[in-house]
Amino acid sequence: MTPPTSGRAARAPRRSPDAPAPVDTGWPVPAGAPVEPGIARIAVDLLGGDDAPAVVVDGALRAVRADPDLHVLLVGPAEAAGELGAALDPAQRARIEIRPVDLVGSGDHPTATRANNTIGAAVRAVRDGAADALVSAGSTGATVTAAALGLGRWPGVRQPALVAALPAVNGPVVLLDVGGSLEPRPASLVRHAALGAAYAAVTHAVGSPRVGLLSIGTEPGKGDRARRLADPALATASLPCGGRYVGLVEGYDVAFGARADVVVTDGFTGNVLLKAIEGAYALTGGPPAGGRAPRAGALLGVAGTVVVCHGAAHGDDVASGIALAAHLARRGATDQVRALLSGTDAGAPTDRYDRITDTEVRTS
Amino acid sequence: MTPPTSGRAARAPRRSPDAPAPVDTGWPVPAGAPVEPGIARIAVDLLGGDDAPAVVVDGALRAVRADPDLHVLLVGPAEAAGELGAALDPAQRARIEIRPVDLVGSGDHPTATRANNTIGAAVRAVRDGAADALVSAGSTGATVTAAALGLGRWPGVRQPALVAALPAVNGPVVLLDVGGSLEPRPASLVRHAALGAAYAAVTHAVGSPRVGLLSIGTEPGKGDRARRLADPALATASLPCGGRYVGLVEGYDVAFGARADVVVTDGFTGNVLLKAIEGAYALTGGPPAGGRAPRAGALLGVAGTVVVCHGAAHGDDVASGIALAAHLARRGATDQVRALLSGTDAGAPTDRYDRITDTEVRTS
Repeated sequence: MTPPTSGRAARAPRRSPDAPAPVDTGWPVPAGAPVEPGIARIAVDLLGGDDAPAVVVDGALRAVRADPDLHVLLVGPAEAAGELGAALDPAQRARIEIRPVDLVGSGDHPTATRANNTIGAAVRAVRDGAADALVSAGSTGATVTAAALGLGRWPGVRQPALVAALPAVNGPVVLLDVGGSLEPRPASLVRHAALGAAYAAVTHAVGSPRVGLLSIGTEPGKGDRARRLADPALATASLPCGGRYVGLVEGYDVAFGARADVVVTDGFTGNVLLKAIEGAYALTGGPPAGGRAPRAGALLGVAGTVVVCHGAAHGDDVASGIALAAHLARRGATDQVRALLSGTDAGAPTDRYDRITDTEVRTS
Repeated sequence: MTPPTSGRAARAPRRSPDAPAPVDTGWPVPAGAPVEPGIARIAVDLLGGDDAPAVVVDGALRAVRADPDLHVLLVGPAEAAGELGAALDPAQRARIEIRPVDLVGSGDHPTATRANNTIGAAVRAVRDGAADALVSAGSTGATVTAAALGLGRWPGVRQPALVAALPAVNGPVVLLDVGGSLEPRPASLVRHAALGAAYAAVTHAVGSPRVGLLSIGTEPGKGDRARRLADPALATASLPCGGRYVGLVEGYDVAFGARADVVVTDGFTGNVLLKAIEGAYALTGGPPAGGRAPRAGALLGVAGTVVVCHGAAHGDDVASGIALAAHLARRGATDQVRALLSGTDAGAPTDRYDRITDTEVRTS
């Protein structure tokens, strides 16, 4: 029997430091790479983000300029979009549309804020087939909740995970969860390992992804209660795409890379970690060859393509998020990941891993 | 009334990139700074660390070369120390001593491993007055346990904290806990805020330290259960040295700095974060002016000076840890921090914050 190809199958090309800066099409698409063909219709939450709606409009303009087959549906009050597209040619202008939203007491969340109303309306645009994917820089919690309610969760996934890809020494490291759910549960850590392995294979072409569980040391037994329970469960779990569990990894392995292609953690730790790496890059000038910390992540575990941007997103971050959503939608990445999970016990709907939480955690 | 001087009072001097690299005397002593006067006797766990005893011996040699008033007590089997000090002059050689340890079934831990025996013996050297401080690159958990049992905990401190100081844009950021205890407890987060404020004032001369609680966003209500409970408790807590609680901060604020002088988190998150920043520095070449991620932390909350080095420490990391221990011992920093706590409700022995855990956590 031929052994499976293991480790990373393809590396992102590195840009020469002398080359002119290309339009940033967003991670995981390498900067400067050609846009994939095919119409992509992206619903964007006009009121999501600390500096919305200005940065959202700016991001949409950047995105349509960079991608000739991109259509953007700005979901929110028409007046918030301001003077749209003075800098765009008529063909580009025609690819941005406003979908007005009744902001008071309507939608899936009668008592929600204005921004939550726009998230809910953007989710409905995906559910009803008016858009292929959704992008929001609003509250991660509100977006995850609206997406889970409006689109439905995958069987077996209790806690959808937000996944980000970080530049590292040998190519991207897929990190999840970075904010989808905040309390660590062993069963979710196991499921997220399956999600991450499938995502790395589908979006980064990693064969037999190496999956690590983030902890405070690499020896078995290192970590808090949730990690000590998830580690042995992962050691016997079957992961999709030939994914191999490599055991406990440390923070170093997320930022520098080399030991794992996928690193699994809870959403609190992952979110804090991602922003710490962003801060370290700001202090040091960042990684070589133009890499940067991702400011957008894909939500896995809901029936639709959803991208969440950093709340403090700038226009280029929103454009990055839209490009990531278009990339995932064109590949059908979300559906591919979901299909890959069903053949593995860590991803399929079973109570095998939920039992870890329900019994062992209580008594440990 | 004159308002208190707020924020950072003194900054570490920056070394010109052209200057020759000085002996690294360890954070928080700026590299190249003169060693403080006064004999310091440091007990060092000869078998602690992934690459012990070689790196420990190397670290001890480097440390005594750099500091003319330093005495090192290597605690462990004499044969493990190998050929000590061929590169030292007789005066330097006289400042390194071996304290032999019976490695089987003796000491405070009859069933412990060889390394745990040496940690226990090093703790006893401090307790009995043979050394002013203890350094180990062994298991953090074993060191914390041995120190708490052998030296005693401070009143009101259930979970001692390991504290590290990271280089940041305006001077060091004090981060705690980085591995002393692993499960987040709101009461410990509040106490650690008091420990961190006092430590920043004593060891970094920060007036009215700004203290932040690490979470996934800065708005009140952001975070997991432990953070949502600790945040309002910290808002009304009194902190030593004019410490001011600035609310929730993010990972960015640990690595880049600027928003807080002290960042409080649980030991799992802090440890993972510290190593992620180390990895980001390895990828990027590190911060300007020779700063680096700390590879040693001080343990606060036990009655003695204890420094824990990274398990994967090299000789220069062990030397850094010894220099940090000598610096803290010469200043009487641990006793100063302890004395400062007693006047504040967040640091003093009271059940006010423990009640948060015992009641609200269960019902939330």
